[in-house]
Amino acid sequence: KGEGIWLYTADGDQYLDFYNNVASLGHCHPQVVEAMTKQAHTLSTNTRYLHDTIIEYSERLTDLFPDPLSQAIYTCTGSEANDLACRIAKYHTGGEGYIVSEYAYHGTSHLISSLSPNLGPTVSLHPNLRTVPAPHSFDPSVDVGEQFTAHVQAAIDDLQRRGIKPAALLVDSIFSSDGVYTEPKGFLKGAVKAIHKAGGLFIADEVQPGFARTGDHMWGFQRHGVTPDLVTLGKPMGNGYPMSGVIARPEVSREFGASARYFNTFAGNTVAAANGLAVLNVIRDQNLLENSYKMGAYLKEALESIASSKIAEVRGSGLFYGVEIVQAKDNYTPDEKTAKAIVNALRKRKTLISTTGKNDNILKVRPPLIVTKENIDQFINTLQDVMSELGVLSH
Amino acid sequence: KGEGIWLYTADGDQYLDFYNNVASLGHCHPQVVEAMTKQAHTLSTNTRYLHDTIIEYSERLTDLFPDPLSQAIYTCTGSEANDLACRIAKYHTGGEGYIVSEYAYHGTSHLISSLSPNLGPTVSLHPNLRTVPAPHSFDPSVDVGEQFTAHVQAAIDDLQRRGIKPAALLVDSIFSSDGVYTEPKGFLKGAVKAIHKAGGLFIADEVQPGFARTGDHMWGFQRHGVTPDLVTLGKPMGNGYPMSGVIARPEVSREFGASARYFNTFAGNTVAAANGLAVLNVIRDQNLLENSYKMGAYLKEALESIASSKIAEVRGSGLFYGVEIVQAKDNYTPDEKTAKAIVNALRKRKTLISTTGKNDNILKVRPPLIVTKENIDQFINTLQDVMSELGVLSH
Repeated sequence: KGEGIWLYTADGDQYLDFYNNVASLGHCHPQVVEAMTKQAHTLSTNTRYLHDTIIEYSERLTDLFPDPLSQAIYTCTGSEANDLACRIAKYHTGGEGYIVSEYAYHGTSHLISSLSPNLGPTVSLHPNLRTVPAPHSFDPSVDVGEQFTAHVQAAIDDLQRRGIKPAALLVDSIFSSDGVYTEPKGFLKGAVKAIHKAGGLFIADEVQPGFARTGDHMWGFQRHGVTPDLVTLGKPMGNGYPMSGVIARPEVSREFGASARYFNTFAGNTVAAANGLAVLNVIRDQNLLENSYKMGAYLKEALESIASSKIAEVRGSGLFYGVEIVQAKDNYTPDEKTAKAIVNALRKRKTLISTTGKNDNILKVRPPLIVTKENIDQFINTLQDVMSELGVLSH
Repeated sequence: KGEGIWLYTADGDQYLDFYNNVASLGHCHPQVVEAMTKQAHTLSTNTRYLHDTIIEYSERLTDLFPDPLSQAIYTCTGSEANDLACRIAKYHTGGEGYIVSEYAYHGTSHLISSLSPNLGPTVSLHPNLRTVPAPHSFDPSVDVGEQFTAHVQAAIDDLQRRGIKPAALLVDSIFSSDGVYTEPKGFLKGAVKAIHKAGGLFIADEVQPGFARTGDHMWGFQRHGVTPDLVTLGKPMGNGYPMSGVIARPEVSREFGASARYFNTFAGNTVAAANGLAVLNVIRDQNLLENSYKMGAYLKEALESIASSKIAEVRGSGLFYGVEIVQAKDNYTPDEKTAKAIVNALRKRKTLISTTGKNDNILKVRPPLIVTKENIDQFINTLQDVMSELGVLSH
């Protein structure tokens, strides 16, 4: 069973869950389950039937976005949201070229898996896909934003040199699968300008960073002072209920919406709407954006205070951190073995995290938005214990 | 609200629902809602965590399929199931050619919308798609199976002539969007043989005909004595909960499964599994396959007994009928206007059906599996009343 930040095995063992980002309000949040149950007992039907809840939910949801992002189109999974956003981008721009980060993961559909190099060599990439290194450098003299812009511009140039019009730059605004890259704020600005200049759209994949995860804003793109043309939502949107969506600038989605006859049977159904509305209410009523910010700062400081020559960097924002484990601080050589040893030792101590990045050497730390100081203290103590046992703490 | 076969407006008006095929066990079936609620209160997590319910559900579900169909892969929507089945077909065969019926609808993803001519000219078709007329003729001397086989063979020949290897023949086994085509049993045999001979796979889209809808079997393809390589499921699978899946021959899915790292966050989650299991229990415990067969025969006879020169044909099986409305019985010219007038007049009489087919002239009649004789009598009386008022009943 699951309850709040805790997962329990069949034998009653209690696990501290610092990993799952679907049950972002905590497992089985009573207010959300209650809203879902009540609606499921009353009516579960699709968006071809008029119903107040879907209107109320859509108004509440789009109100959380800066202008001109004001239209919501519902889907059921993050993959479907990204697939639809790319269909809209292709339709709107007439382009067929895509740019994503080097180790991006955006989903599982035929199109989106071909835009997800993270899936490895057995999944064919789209012939018109160009990839760019994630925005990061260990060298503090490098301007990460300038570097990222230059890579995106080079990808655009390469597409155009081959007569391929760019449709979209698609990025997870916290670069989860690449390794969690968040600083400095604003590093997306030049790239967004470049894709717009080339006639393409900027799609912010907020499936992981969205819904208060990054602490200072509801959406990850807001940290960078950019406004996407399309935003995709997923995972925590229903705290477990399968729901996702695309938020759009009306200029971008209008023509597609009028002509493409997009209908998705389960998407935006009455139960999904009630569920999603309860999630927004809980985030507001429990001040979870504020908690994400405050507890995030506390967690980050605690992670940074761990004295280990194996930790190259602690990166992240709000309640999403990447802790890069290397062979030694001065060479930045990835140490996947130690990272995995830490994850597995934590699991034996009934504490859940995982790894990320191309080399699987980055600890992925992602507690629910309801995490407390006490939970964080327990996590950090356990982490220090296992790192000490593994002989990777400095003394 | 919804309850059984009834939908209620905010004002309390009661509608007889002879149309919705998601709440196939009736709206808000208490046993299903109860199972979902109980699991949602306990644990909602993904297939990366071990859980008995997903195993039990998978065993119960795959037991309903003939050998060698024995593997289940879960997705969240019918579109995702068809998209995944096509990814598997492409991977397994190395082919990239597809064959669907002329007015097929298989879903909304980038790939699947391009295999859905039903969406109309604003949605681009896949360059390697070939379409074939649905298996039907008003001329009783035509062998529908031979005709369909010849069309599929011609499509294969055309692909091969251009160096395109066929990946799959994808058909909805009741041809819902083409116009509901069910007779004679066995008409798919030659086409399946032809696609196999060409190295392609046969994918049965059971999103609409599946789960006892066609009355004599759980799955529509069984009526035709063929065994698909891949079967896709959706709509009624959770009686409203967003869930879908692909059932596969292990030889076809094994290599893809081992190499493509397919993971779908919400698919097969603990709540979906509990929900799906409850649906299977209700179908078994309430003898709904038998009810679909018996009430289907009663409904078909009643539809056929309506005396109208506007009705060219009543087609269908179990609880899914197409009633083709034409200008006159001897010319078969589609009469969309009369078909729509009937649908709207029924709506005014608080009875829900809709139309289908390229010309929207075919009444689509699809009551829930729990329908009773009394419900059918009420429906037929109302239908005759409105047809009489519209002056399209013979006297």
